[in-house]
Amino acid sequence: MKQYGAEFLGTFWLVLGGCGSAVLAAAFPNVGIGLHGVALAFGLTVLTMAYAIGHISGCHLNPAVSVGLWAGGRFPANKLLPYIVAQVLGAIVAGGVLYVIASGAAGFDVSKGFASNGYGAHSPGGYSLMAALVCEIVMTMFFLLIILGATDKRAPTGFAPIPIGLALTLIHLISIPVTNTSVNPARSTGVAVFVGDWAISQLWLFWLAPIVGAVLGAMTYKFIASEES
Amino acid sequence: MKQYGAEFLGTFWLVLGGCGSAVLAAAFPNVGIGLHGVALAFGLTVLTMAYAIGHISGCHLNPAVSVGLWAGGRFPANKLLPYIVAQVLGAIVAGGVLYVIASGAAGFDVSKGFASNGYGAHSPGGYSLMAALVCEIVMTMFFLLIILGATDKRAPTGFAPIPIGLALTLIHLISIPVTNTSVNPARSTGVAVFVGDWAISQLWLFWLAPIVGAVLGAMTYKFIASEES
Amino acid sequence: MKQYGAEFLGTFWLVLGGCGSAVLAAAFPNVGIGLHGVALAFGLTVLTMAYAIGHISGCHLNPAVSVGLWAGGRFPANKLLPYIVAQVLGAIVAGGVLYVIASGAAGFDVSKGFASNGYGAHSPGGYSLMAALVCEIVMTMFFLLIILGATDKRAPTGFAPIPIGLALTLIHLISIPVTNTSVNPARSTGVAVFVGDWAISQLWLFWLAPIVGAVLGAMTYKFIASEES
Amino acid sequence: MKQYGAEFLGTFWLVLGGCGSAVLAAAFPNVGIGLHGVALAFGLTVLTMAYAIGHISGCHLNPAVSVGLWAGGRFPANKLLPYIVAQVLGAIVAGGVLYVIASGAAGFDVSKGFASNGYGAHSPGGYSLMAALVCEIVMTMFFLLIILGATDKRAPTGFAPIPIGLALTLIHLISIPVTNTSVNPARSTGVAVFVGDWAISQLWLFWLAPIVGAVLGAMTYKFIASEES
Repeated sequence: MKQYGAEFLGTFWLVLGGCGSAVLAAAFPNVGIGLHGVALAFGLTVLTMAYAIGHISGCHLNPAVSVGLWAGGRFPANKLLPYIVAQVLGAIVAGGVLYVIASGAAGFDVSKGFASNGYGAHSPGGYSLMAALVCEIVMTMFFLLIILGATDKRAPTGFAPIPIGLALTLIHLISIPVTNTSVNPARSTGVAVFVGDWAISQLWLFWLAPIVGAVLGAMTYKFIASEES
Repeated sequence: MKQYGAEFLGTFWLVLGGCGSAVLAAAFPNVGIGLHGVALAFGLTVLTMAYAIGHISGCHLNPAVSVGLWAGGRFPANKLLPYIVAQVLGAIVAGGVLYVIASGAAGFDVSKGFASNGYGAHSPGGYSLMAALVCEIVMTMFFLLIILGATDKRAPTGFAPIPIGLALTLIHLISIPVTNTSVNPARSTGVAVFVGDWAISQLWLFWLAPIVGAVLGAMTYKFIASEES
Repeated sequence: MKQYGAEFLGTFWLVLGGCGSAVLAAAFPNVGIGLHGVALAFGLTVLTMAYAIGHISGCHLNPAVSVGLWAGGRFPANKLLPYIVAQVLGAIVAGGVLYVIASGAAGFDVSKGFASNGYGAHSPGGYSLMAALVCEIVMTMFFLLIILGATDKRAPTGFAPIPIGLALTLIHLISIPVTNTSVNPARSTGVAVFVGDWAISQLWLFWLAPIVGAVLGAMTYKFIASEES
Repeated sequence: MKQYGAEFLGTFWLVLGGCGSAVLAAAFPNVGIGLHGVALAFGLTVLTMAYAIGHISGCHLNPAVSVGLWAGGRFPANKLLPYIVAQVLGAIVAGGVLYVIASGAAGFDVSKGFASNGYGAHSPGGYSLMAALVCEIVMTMFFLLIILGATDKRAPTGFAPIPIGLALTLIHLISIPVTNTSVNPARSTGVAVFVGDWAISQLWLFWLAPIVGAVLGAMTYKFIASEES
């Protein structure tokens, strides 16, 4: 139960911090933090939480990460469902708290996107479904490869939250224009439920692609990291 | 006494660095550091001081942090008052030094805000009292959760200043538009006393909300981290 | 074979992340990440991969680094060729994946540069061949000096990926306007082959200068670091 | 001799990286790195070099740091002069290399400032001599306090280059508008000699204030850190 509580809180923080910075601060007049600041915020949610709750739940905060760690032989199958439920609930509650804060200023309009992920007409830069699919798969694949590598017994001890958090920053620096960057089905769901409409109807891609990418990443890491070589 | 001196100096640095970057550099023409740079500056004041004086005073630099550590069973009640006094004094002296520097250029006007925290008409983005209250409580709650988690005996040794400092950066990346971000009553007080007027009359929120949030954070961490589970 | 696979994947990530952030996000309207974000992205590709695959291949991701490590007595000559082949292949495949993603939005035009390196008329800031040559040699020289120093047995254990990755960020903060920053022949090749034309005809400089700089850096480090002194 | 070589190279890197990013990239059209990027660059020169050559020379790269470490009882008086000579020479050679690179593009004009430090009419934001003096003294004082604290035997081992490098970033985030930020007489000298004129005639402040601040910082740290308390 403590683990599920930790995953709930951690994913809450990821969505409130990442999507919150995007909704509240990215385009603030003259001094807005831009996509660079949003990318940093997403990464720092993971870096901070990994040091805070890593020793409790492992700090996945992401259904694709949980699936990828299972595929990589690092996480038991019987915990997959409760972890994913806790993550999605944390994400949705975060979406709700963000809604309360954001709607406290004039001019807020959830239909502007509320940091939802999208493709085609709803991609920030107008990228096609195919580009979105490739991008989310490849990004999540390398995210898992970094997670598995940095937490490998042969990697330096204690550092893993730094490369893992900053990998999420890097992924956002590359791909916000393409899909607003998901690589995390819980994060996508947590805000899409408040937007409804297109955000819900495009949500399938942000469950499918990250999970496919995560499994590919786990398989790839197993291949290059096997010690027999 | 050494501990109080360290807290005085550390909080001085937090206010001079964080509020100083906001007042002097955020909106500098063409090449200003923006809210992103201010967020980084606040976080780096804590990261740098935590390595410099963590072994002397624990480097709280914030009455809400001291209260939260007490609530979490990590700090003795009898040191609360002198720590808070040292922090507030350090913050006010920093406000004074910043005033001396800032007023050395034409066009400086303390009534522009001097990096004070506010809500409603004095929120940078015009956010309501309710939004400000929710935002400050939730942000401080997670700040304490990260502080308690990263300094837990089970967390990697020596790293804590990194996630704690960067958590403050993250909090600013999200919430400067809402309240100019406090999560620290000393920081709010240190500049408000120079602005007077609305900055003083709104100061109650930036004592109340961070302290409430800090206690909530401590209670939450105790719940998810108890080792019996 | 595992090592070559790791170098292939790592260099893929360096080019997809670094050049991808430049092509997709640098000049995104209003909230683009700018050269600062691109610099961070390049550095984070190395920081993340060094923790993920450092224990497998050493994480060179760069023919100049492999040559410099060989010149510094840290890498065997017989692995130089396969490492460089794996790096160049990884870079080219990354260029291809980036092409697929980037061409998924209207207005993409590979002839705009596709993050290729150049000098003279093809330098972002119009810098001469001589400036480009000096800049790439000096930057790669110090990159190797930092790599050799941070991985020296006398340096703190486990930290090396942080200064090495951030050195690449620093190098980009300085020199993107001069040559779009190479210091890595594989990175230059990976995108130049898709641009053809001038990008191919200027490619010689981005093989020559980084390798010369890397050897100078290795020789310099040997000189200042020899323990007999 | 190896130590002096290391200090020469390290200070070369500090000036080439910090001033180079300012001259070449800060105001690049549309995607310039701004003062935020310059601040990061200065800090990363120290962070990267401290891991690369810290085990050789201690990586001072700054006459004020050498004096402050001597005042703090951490550095022998007889090495002060050769360290400072090596630092100033490295800074001046870096200024020369930067001049060669920067003059490789049309429109370069060294009289635009070449990243020199100044006050009054030559302060970026028009700050008075008094504001400049206070700012440089206080900034260097806290820089030394952080250096002495982070390298204290009681601080976590191996981390010091991170807070020390990022302290320099923080100092620049605050104070570039005031003096273009020195806190380092060698850095000021290395570019001023190429500008001549006002940059030379104002140079006294950027030797005096950092050294006064460094001694104050060392004395303050001794006071709060003495273990008898």
